[in-house]
Amino acid sequence: MGRWEPNALERLQDAAMQLFQERGYDRTTVEEIAARAGLTERTFFRYFADKREVLFSRSKELEALIVNAIADAPKEMAPIDVVAAALEALSPGFEERRAHAAKRQPLILAHAELRERELIKLASLASAMAESLRGRGVEKTVANLVAEAGIAIFKSAFERWVEDTKKHELAHHVRVALAELRLITAGASVAPSSPLPTRKVPRRSRSTSR
Amino acid sequence: MGRWEPNALERLQDAAMQLFQERGYDRTTVEEIAARAGLTERTFFRYFADKREVLFSRSKELEALIVNAIADAPKEMAPIDVVAAALEALSPGFEERRAHAAKRQPLILAHAELRERELIKLASLASAMAESLRGRGVEKTVANLVAEAGIAIFKSAFERWVEDTKKHELAHHVRVALAELRLITAGASVAPSSPLPTRKVPRRSRSTSR
Repeated sequence: MGRWEPNALERLQDAAMQLFQERGYDRTTVEEIAARAGLTERTFFRYFADKREVLFSRSKELEALIVNAIADAPKEMAPIDVVAAALEALSPGFEERRAHAAKRQPLILAHAELRERELIKLASLASAMAESLRGRGVEKTVANLVAEAGIAIFKSAFERWVEDTKKHELAHHVRVALAELRLITAGASVAPSSPLPTRKVPRRSRSTSR
Repeated sequence: MGRWEPNALERLQDAAMQLFQERGYDRTTVEEIAARAGLTERTFFRYFADKREVLFSRSKELEALIVNAIADAPKEMAPIDVVAAALEALSPGFEERRAHAAKRQPLILAHAELRERELIKLASLASAMAESLRGRGVEKTVANLVAEAGIAIFKSAFERWVEDTKKHELAHHVRVALAELRLITAGASVAPSSPLPTRKVPRRSRSTSR
């Protein structure tokens, strides 16, 4: 497997992000990323399957975190609360990488092949969450639907976390998105000015606007 | 553009499905699909960008149907009900193609490149739904979240429609999935035996199992 390179993964990620910023994603090659990191192309491919993957290296780690949090949640907790709590548990890891995410997100949005890879990672996350819920005794179709609702919450929370000028942490936005989803499914129109909880989500939300 | 070929699109789709069933998706070429349909490869590419696309030819049509249904829904309807009604409106078109869908679905599940294409079509549908909701005055982040909830409902309903031995129509499964999502977000565990509405979704669902 070649000799051990200290922090090779981080060096490759940092080099890739620098080059993507300097000359654009399309005009950066794997060879250049490896060279900038002071490593070989072969080392790059020991860590990443392709150029896209360098932007998704944490997805398996996040998936494992969520799956474990779901498995370990208290038995009596409702499935949607289990999933939301698991998503909230991602917060510390995300806070560390706010600057990275702010650079990464526009790249993803601007390149179809990166959006595609992101969709696949989210679909993989949904399957893993559903599987973990089934392990708690949740019936298959319900587990799938809860997992998809979890993805909807995560996407919404992440979108707002990246753009949040007040720098609330991801967990806050997960709680807001869950509260909003409760209002939405209850049939509310959720006016932009509607009061949303800033700390704790109430046990049961009620429609306020009809 | 070459001469006019009657029903070329349908002939190509039928030929493709026959060949996929006979020799598998991977071992079928565009050349063979065109030959089986009695058409040229050039004609194939006039209708489809690639081999995958022959299985997704109706996605733009479905998207237009949903977007129009959302735009035309009564003003006072809650966003989630607007989206569910738009999904229910797909039912007649789906009933006509139940046999086709039963063959298509295992192909999609068995091929990563087809699942990938499906994810992209669903993401495109979500964007279109969110856009249409914004046209009704729904605020952006709410519109995105309602659209994602709509995708969760659609996936769940479609999954059950394809497998339904009792042949309930898609609209029925959309109503069941929405009712389930209401229970789920209200914090229910939704036991497999929990009573779900078979016709009309109640105005407001309540948690029954905690």
